[in-house]
Amino acid sequence: MSEHRHGGRDLAHGGHGHDDEHGHGGFMMSVEAYLDVIRDAIRPLAPSELELADAEGCVLAEDVTAAVSLPPFDNSGMDGYAVLASDVSSASASSPVTLPVTGEIAAGDVGTYRLVPGTAMRIMTGARLPAGADAVVPVEWTDADDARESGPAAREGGSRVSVRRPASAGNAVRYVGEDARAGDVLLTAGVRMRPMHIAVAASAGRRAVRVRPRPRIVVLSTGNELAEPGTPLVPGQIWESNSYMLAALAREAGAVACRRSVVPDEVDGVLPAISSQLGEADLVITTGGVSMGGEHDVVKAALASLGTVAFRKVAMQPGMPQGFGVIRGSGSAGASGAAGAVPIFTFPGNPVSAYVSFQLFARPALGFLQGLDDMRLPVASAVLTAPVRSPAGRRSYLRGVLSPGREAPSPGTGTPSPGTVEPLSGQGSHQVAALGRANCLIIVPEREAQLPAGHTVDVLVLP
Amino acid sequence: MSEHRHGGRDLAHGGHGHDDEHGHGGFMMSVEAYLDVIRDAIRPLAPSELELADAEGCVLAEDVTAAVSLPPFDNSGMDGYAVLASDVSSASASSPVTLPVTGEIAAGDVGTYRLVPGTAMRIMTGARLPAGADAVVPVEWTDADDARESGPAAREGGSRVSVRRPASAGNAVRYVGEDARAGDVLLTAGVRMRPMHIAVAASAGRRAVRVRPRPRIVVLSTGNELAEPGTPLVPGQIWESNSYMLAALAREAGAVACRRSVVPDEVDGVLPAISSQLGEADLVITTGGVSMGGEHDVVKAALASLGTVAFRKVAMQPGMPQGFGVIRGSGSAGASGAAGAVPIFTFPGNPVSAYVSFQLFARPALGFLQGLDDMRLPVASAVLTAPVRSPAGRRSYLRGVLSPGREAPSPGTGTPSPGTVEPLSGQGSHQVAALGRANCLIIVPEREAQLPAGHTVDVLVLP
Repeated sequence: MSEHRHGGRDLAHGGHGHDDEHGHGGFMMSVEAYLDVIRDAIRPLAPSELELADAEGCVLAEDVTAAVSLPPFDNSGMDGYAVLASDVSSASASSPVTLPVTGEIAAGDVGTYRLVPGTAMRIMTGARLPAGADAVVPVEWTDADDARESGPAAREGGSRVSVRRPASAGNAVRYVGEDARAGDVLLTAGVRMRPMHIAVAASAGRRAVRVRPRPRIVVLSTGNELAEPGTPLVPGQIWESNSYMLAALAREAGAVACRRSVVPDEVDGVLPAISSQLGEADLVITTGGVSMGGEHDVVKAALASLGTVAFRKVAMQPGMPQGFGVIRGSGSAGASGAAGAVPIFTFPGNPVSAYVSFQLFARPALGFLQGLDDMRLPVASAVLTAPVRSPAGRRSYLRGVLSPGREAPSPGTGTPSPGTVEPLSGQGSHQVAALGRANCLIIVPEREAQLPAGHTVDVLVLP
Repeated sequence: MSEHRHGGRDLAHGGHGHDDEHGHGGFMMSVEAYLDVIRDAIRPLAPSELELADAEGCVLAEDVTAAVSLPPFDNSGMDGYAVLASDVSSASASSPVTLPVTGEIAAGDVGTYRLVPGTAMRIMTGARLPAGADAVVPVEWTDADDARESGPAAREGGSRVSVRRPASAGNAVRYVGEDARAGDVLLTAGVRMRPMHIAVAASAGRRAVRVRPRPRIVVLSTGNELAEPGTPLVPGQIWESNSYMLAALAREAGAVACRRSVVPDEVDGVLPAISSQLGEADLVITTGGVSMGGEHDVVKAALASLGTVAFRKVAMQPGMPQGFGVIRGSGSAGASGAAGAVPIFTFPGNPVSAYVSFQLFARPALGFLQGLDDMRLPVASAVLTAPVRSPAGRRSYLRGVLSPGREAPSPGTGTPSPGTVEPLSGQGSHQVAALGRANCLIIVPEREAQLPAGHTVDVLVLP
């Protein structure tokens, strides 16, 4: 009953009455316009040269070109015998061609060899093709294959090889430069270094590459009501979760060295707490202390005194009260943009508001710091399994469970079918349990006050 | 011309002749059957208790329940005034109800208060609702809102508040337990700890959770032809990339402490190199030295002597020669399954073969080590933009570029359209440049020797 009442009210009010968001009057900026403000204010971090292992997941800040052709030399694609194709053109099972074996070339053999016409050289996969040879006869096409099956002993005498099949010129030969030619661009600036890119860079002989470093984030959570998880609660207190959540979100989005701290609601305490960490931050995120409600908004009061952080209402639910700006740090080289000018977000204190705010604004901002504009969450479409409501004039991001449909035809037949999305019960911005069950955010446009079951909506797919 | 010839030949042969895979005769096991062999051999790692920050991305090995109700007490969802709803039921803009303000309750105030009927108490977002109050009047519905707009000075005298709108019982009140009730299961064992799960655990007062640790991977690359990236090449050598690539792949799949090493092609050198690192490994991956070609297959020779590693042909291209088994380590507790029994994969030495082998077999194996069976790469369907060929009887995984279609209808209209996939030129298993441009693997079924442009295929979407 109680569950139903709350669930019902949540959906009926889209979280209104459960949110730390007051003041529905006054100008509200659209989510897109606000993201433009953020984009305009953030400059990419200066690139640095990182060893391959450290460059994983970073954004490449240079084009990686092939210094030499790859492979650097003609080599064998199989274990077998290097030959002159014309010498084995008549080979068949009934009348094999027998050639003297004049030597053996193993992978990594750095000697230089020349094949004498009318002879063969045993050659291993990856070994350099001897001059004068133009084909490789796989061992399976020779009598050495029988020998192999019957064990080492049978191999000893093999100073001759009988070839049972003709090999055309180029057979099982990997030509110099057929992977890449010297000067070819293998990786272009702006790519995020995934494992296959690491492989390409290493194959091209690069032990380090120039990348945008991972942004360093500092997270500051404010509130006298916050108790550290693992400690007992006194009535009036709740356990602090925002700093853990935001640090995890930042790491998930490619940031590193996330530091978290919790400070009480004192104007005199907030600013020093932030300033003391600016030197280690490329981005600062605070939570709490920014509701529209006056003297207890310590973060707002502290940062307003700097005059470089703007506090706005964004037409969204949850997360309406947003603060963003740039504050002066110690001038640390690591800081983004002008030396010591560190972007800062002030998010609402309710966990769901902070979560949604991060995904909509801080996640893209981490991309901007890395010179990327592609960090927004992917959008999917799905059919509502239940009605939803939303405050008029604000875009709601409701927690939901997306069940993908058939994303595309199974080979040959049918057409794709869209997924369905179930709005979760417990849409209050303090109701983190529902967030824990969600895998997407249901978008209810500003113009809609409610949407019926069966309506197709856009959803943000959560990582 | 040369490019065309190679590209053409690559597609025409699906990499045959470019692979380190010999011996097309004999029994070949299906990819699915081989994955079953792997699944049956791997036991999950023993769970351990990790602090929240360390538990990120790990798989939960316990149910996380709410020790107390959340929120733990009735509290205010807004800044405003705690009242008895019946005291303000007649309030209107024309005839506001004025109440004496008997006190103020801030968030984190652990005092116990009681509201006297006919009075109001100022209350902040998150503050505990005083006994006797059943509603919160938002500050915007009172004359305090005007005062706020005109600055602190105007607030001083506020020992009374005029309420302009009635508030129904429960307005802006967050009830105890409306997020979760004591005993509710908030997170279930088996979930991978994403940021929202970290938030839920912290909100429930947990500073640590029981999880499956991240698997520790050791990567061993073999080959006399391998030179370390950053060092000059001698003709006959190529730069080593597999160990960097596989370590990156393992980390991308949630593993940690990846150690990489490169050993020469000597049977006497391989086994000690592996054994010396078993104590630190939950999984070992080697590359190279497993082609079907006899005495130079040092990894195969070394591990065959243990008798616990099976070498098979898997009906795939690239990656046909596969070795998998369990080898005895030092008995380190960290090792999976029976003490010191460490699973080991021996992958082919060509980078593309090793990459595909990892995604098909090692990635799911990392899931099994964490008690998950969901680590296979997602499958999408797409329409071929060009024809592809594949060796009969083997399933090809060709490098491609997937361009997603309209994944689902835009709200209200249309039907989804599948994506398209372009097969890349340079499909040889040594041609890593094409892998660097790929974002998917095109699956060509065993029964197909070729597929025309316009055919719909399944593709594995690469991370």
